[in-house]
Amino acid sequence: MSLPVAFHDIAKRVNNWGRWGPDDEIGTLNLITEEVVREAAATVRTGRRVPLALDLKQDGVQTGMIPGRVNPLHVMVQINQELFGPGTVATSDDAVTMGLQAGTHWDALTHVSHSGRIYNGRPAATVTPHGRSEFSGIHTARHVVSRGVLLDVAAAKGVDRLPGGHAVTPEDLDEAAEFGGVAVRAGDVVLVRTGQIQAYLAGDRHGYAFPSPGLSVRTPEWFHARDVAAVANDTLTFEIFPPEIENLWLPVHALDLVEMGMLQGQNWNLEELSTACAQERRYAFLLSAMPEPFVGGTGTPVAPVAVL
Amino acid sequence: MSLPVAFHDIAKRVNNWGRWGPDDEIGTLNLITEEVVREAAATVRTGRRVPLALDLKQDGVQTGMIPGRVNPLHVMVQINQELFGPGTVATSDDAVTMGLQAGTHWDALTHVSHSGRIYNGRPAATVTPHGRSEFSGIHTARHVVSRGVLLDVAAAKGVDRLPGGHAVTPEDLDEAAEFGGVAVRAGDVVLVRTGQIQAYLAGDRHGYAFPSPGLSVRTPEWFHARDVAAVANDTLTFEIFPPEIENLWLPVHALDLVEMGMLQGQNWNLEELSTACAQERRYAFLLSAMPEPFVGGTGTPVAPVAVL
Amino acid sequence: MSLPVAFHDIAKRVNNWGRWGPDDEIGTLNLITEEVVREAAATVRTGRRVPLALDLKQDGVQTGMIPGRVNPLHVMVQINQELFGPGTVATSDDAVTMGLQAGTHWDALTHVSHSGRIYNGRPAATVTPHGRSEFSGIHTARHVVSRGVLLDVAAAKGVDRLPGGHAVTPEDLDEAAEFGGVAVRAGDVVLVRTGQIQAYLAGDRHGYAFPSPGLSVRTPEWFHARDVAAVANDTLTFEIFPPEIENLWLPVHALDLVEMGMLQGQNWNLEELSTACAQERRYAFLLSAMPEPFVGGTGTPVAPVAVL
Amino acid sequence: MSLPVAFHDIAKRVNNWGRWGPDDEIGTLNLITEEVVREAAATVRTGRRVPLALDLKQDGVQTGMIPGRVNPLHVMVQINQELFGPGTVATSDDAVTMGLQAGTHWDALTHVSHSGRIYNGRPAATVTPHGRSEFSGIHTARHVVSRGVLLDVAAAKGVDRLPGGHAVTPEDLDEAAEFGGVAVRAGDVVLVRTGQIQAYLAGDRHGYAFPSPGLSVRTPEWFHARDVAAVANDTLTFEIFPPEIENLWLPVHALDLVEMGMLQGQNWNLEELSTACAQERRYAFLLSAMPEPFVGGTGTPVAPVAVL
Repeated sequence: MSLPVAFHDIAKRVNNWGRWGPDDEIGTLNLITEEVVREAAATVRTGRRVPLALDLKQDGVQTGMIPGRVNPLHVMVQINQELFGPGTVATSDDAVTMGLQAGTHWDALTHVSHSGRIYNGRPAATVTPHGRSEFSGIHTARHVVSRGVLLDVAAAKGVDRLPGGHAVTPEDLDEAAEFGGVAVRAGDVVLVRTGQIQAYLAGDRHGYAFPSPGLSVRTPEWFHARDVAAVANDTLTFEIFPPEIENLWLPVHALDLVEMGMLQGQNWNLEELSTACAQERRYAFLLSAMPEPFVGGTGTPVAPVAVL
Repeated sequence: MSLPVAFHDIAKRVNNWGRWGPDDEIGTLNLITEEVVREAAATVRTGRRVPLALDLKQDGVQTGMIPGRVNPLHVMVQINQELFGPGTVATSDDAVTMGLQAGTHWDALTHVSHSGRIYNGRPAATVTPHGRSEFSGIHTARHVVSRGVLLDVAAAKGVDRLPGGHAVTPEDLDEAAEFGGVAVRAGDVVLVRTGQIQAYLAGDRHGYAFPSPGLSVRTPEWFHARDVAAVANDTLTFEIFPPEIENLWLPVHALDLVEMGMLQGQNWNLEELSTACAQERRYAFLLSAMPEPFVGGTGTPVAPVAVL
Repeated sequence: MSLPVAFHDIAKRVNNWGRWGPDDEIGTLNLITEEVVREAAATVRTGRRVPLALDLKQDGVQTGMIPGRVNPLHVMVQINQELFGPGTVATSDDAVTMGLQAGTHWDALTHVSHSGRIYNGRPAATVTPHGRSEFSGIHTARHVVSRGVLLDVAAAKGVDRLPGGHAVTPEDLDEAAEFGGVAVRAGDVVLVRTGQIQAYLAGDRHGYAFPSPGLSVRTPEWFHARDVAAVANDTLTFEIFPPEIENLWLPVHALDLVEMGMLQGQNWNLEELSTACAQERRYAFLLSAMPEPFVGGTGTPVAPVAVL
Repeated sequence: MSLPVAFHDIAKRVNNWGRWGPDDEIGTLNLITEEVVREAAATVRTGRRVPLALDLKQDGVQTGMIPGRVNPLHVMVQINQELFGPGTVATSDDAVTMGLQAGTHWDALTHVSHSGRIYNGRPAATVTPHGRSEFSGIHTARHVVSRGVLLDVAAAKGVDRLPGGHAVTPEDLDEAAEFGGVAVRAGDVVLVRTGQIQAYLAGDRHGYAFPSPGLSVRTPEWFHARDVAAVANDTLTFEIFPPEIENLWLPVHALDLVEMGMLQGQNWNLEELSTACAQERRYAFLLSAMPEPFVGGTGTPVAPVAVL
């Protein structure tokens, strides 16, 4: 079995291999120029900060459906321990075991491969258990600060939450951009809101995971045409799940990460941001969303903040 | 044995308990007002981004000196796994076990207690193994974006790196502020550079840990007088270690975290920032340094970025 | 709220505090004398070895019902790595994160406390996050080799598996001993088979956990009268769950571990042993079931083997 | 570079591939027949039990020399938690992260490969990050109970501890067998004592690791000639380290595990056993040393007990 012709047609159109040279490891993050950052800072008007990360805790979003992607096991290793003797200053320390993609996270470009290749045409076999990914590890993407744009697809359609079977199309993205009065530009980090995370916030982890609305296989061309730097949304699977085309699993991952070299984010909580943007009638803002620099990591927890 | 009178005298002068009400959990982070954030964004001129986190890897800064504070054990749980059958898109996933204070990190206000109390006068016993810290867990501090100020003490003194026995005094901080042509203001996040991290970067983990230059017990009053929101530096211990006053261990931790309720950061790599500030002749910038929201965490890895 | 009078009455009758001196940490394991071990070895006739541990794997018996008790996350840290250069001998290494009570395990005497006390009257507060349990940690119980006796309650009743609501009573134990033609003696490790583990082996983790047959609150007196050294069975909860007496949770744990100081084991797979004992018409054997010596551990994985 | 001719010559002589059929996964453990087990049980005379495992704790034998092989990080996840409300029975639970070969352990046959092969001629590539080892995982070796024989090389030579540079030769093994008055037989588990672990027990972890006495590359033929089932000793590296033949790293591992399919154990504490055997003037005993059944594991902690 192999990937269908339709997939390869899109792949050709969005492919960025070699665009920033044969040695490039960060793909569309190259589009966040210093000019983009200056303009991002200039969007700040009220100074209101909106955090976008879910709490990290043992009853997080993972249900066991994805093997090895474990919710945080957060434990204390010291509790008010008087390390230097009785009556001295006491310290508390903690540790965690977790999947790097367990909560609100970025996928590294190495998170998926297809046909034996990762971004920039490198062999998939460069992802190894030692030294982890030789190229494009998440530590290479460490300073993600740019202009953020919220495309509030659910609000644009006048609903709280898109239904499970809804594939977010280019037309939906256009509609949301128009609703927000915002034009997506080169270097932007685009946040696509479906409202799906409400299921998790209401305690329904399984309903959150599946079935899920998400990005259509037609969206990578839309992002590519606008030279978007990264895309995140408020679902577990990022793309519509189960998939639009039978037996074509994770095509959006393959197009975004492998072909375009574009960072993807999942499990972002965009609920408060939706309210804030509606109140301020602005859908562009300064976004800080720096990966934790795990050397060779294929993903990372992230605690993004939008500044309006 | 108990803490000396001199300690308690300073403690009284810098104490912030009740200042933001009896229910407050975040202390001096309250000083980062929307106005402060607006002014922080307005400092951006070139759009240059400088990351301040060390790589997360197994041969990180920890040497085993601090029990339970383990360097990241970063492992692959899936490598190019074709989850949906041969020829399908393949995924790679990873997981980590690490001390939350193992690398570049923030201490939560709960990281230390003294005389049975944590910040705002709450009992130290509210730090527990279940649900972790009931109050002031690191997840309560989640949107740290403010104005950052680099006080480059080493550069102000014309040295690459302060000697191991050097206690950074209020006079040193004044000298560095004057050197940088910057006035520390309410809500600022102050970064104090000693150059000590060069030892770690050169491969000498033990020499990095000990002996270390660091903040003097006299600095909390300096920060308190200026209503600083948070302070980070480029050492393992934050304060001078071994301590200035015999048998008075971790007094700066106790004053900053417990009495003032002020966030502390350690193991920040300020080398590139030192160069950038010198080149741009500016020592104030936009700083993003958001904690990962571990519920009840007493610390967190952080991947700070300065935007100049 | 406090524990009912009925509980305290039984507690008095089975209490072993002080029986082996004020400094004792291992309780009824003292009953495994060298004579008992010699007799255990003498039970071996065919040399057939029957392993009693469940596989350790990520889809193990834990469902998330018990906070922090995580199934094994077993990961590779090296795969065929030629550590000394190309063409040299290659090594593979792995690591695990797991709850010590996640799979087939022993509870240490410190696993539960009631009324502020653990075994031998020590304060419950001696179980701490540093150095873990000061007394009776699982490492103190390291050489559990004795005579094992299978009480096959299900087989004695002519059923494959006891129903979820069945409390195993002293009468049931007598019936199973008679069925097996075996007399329980001082120092024996008694294995009580309900057949409940068949649910887990058939893939039904939730049905395995709850509702579960298990030991009645009346059984500690039966074990105490016979000076049994330890008891294990093939359920998640050991005792009947939900409990026999409304709102009296885990009374058998409290009586066995705290009052008697008797080791308990759970999630033991007794299916093959049931067959083997029936075939050989013998229900006593040599049992090796050594705890892994985690210093201060409140439990341990164990890989028991019966030798017939 | 490739392995030298001398290595391949020995390899041919000790090779067991196909000896127990093409599907065999456990190698020389096949030699522990029921008759061997019966005879092992019959060696028990006094019933004295001697545990052979080191304590599992954070300051264990690992120094960081072997990447990813981390000492146990043992943490509490519940401490005297009244799960069912105030005044109810309270429970304590713990968890661990550790390298499977971190302490007293068995290597699985898959722990090393050479020339692209593991035991029985299977491709080394069958050791993967998912499902781990497809063949010969440590869970296939679960019921290691047999006759144990102590070859106390140090005592036979009249020293407390062999020097770091000492390669234990076949002649040394003969000498120790004669010293102990014991003949090694088919199915035996042989324990070779060097005394090296005294360095670790005295607090010198680095001196324990390196330089180390250990088995010579000439010993696999000795074990093969006697059809030994498994071998363990009291060193970190098992074989002499640094190696006898320049640039021939881990040849004994490759011969024992890959060619013969014979289980190896390291970091066994044989000090008390040395004393006990000397006192009882017997060097053969019943040995229980069951692996924890990690599915596909390349090693396992083990808590062996000798019964004399």
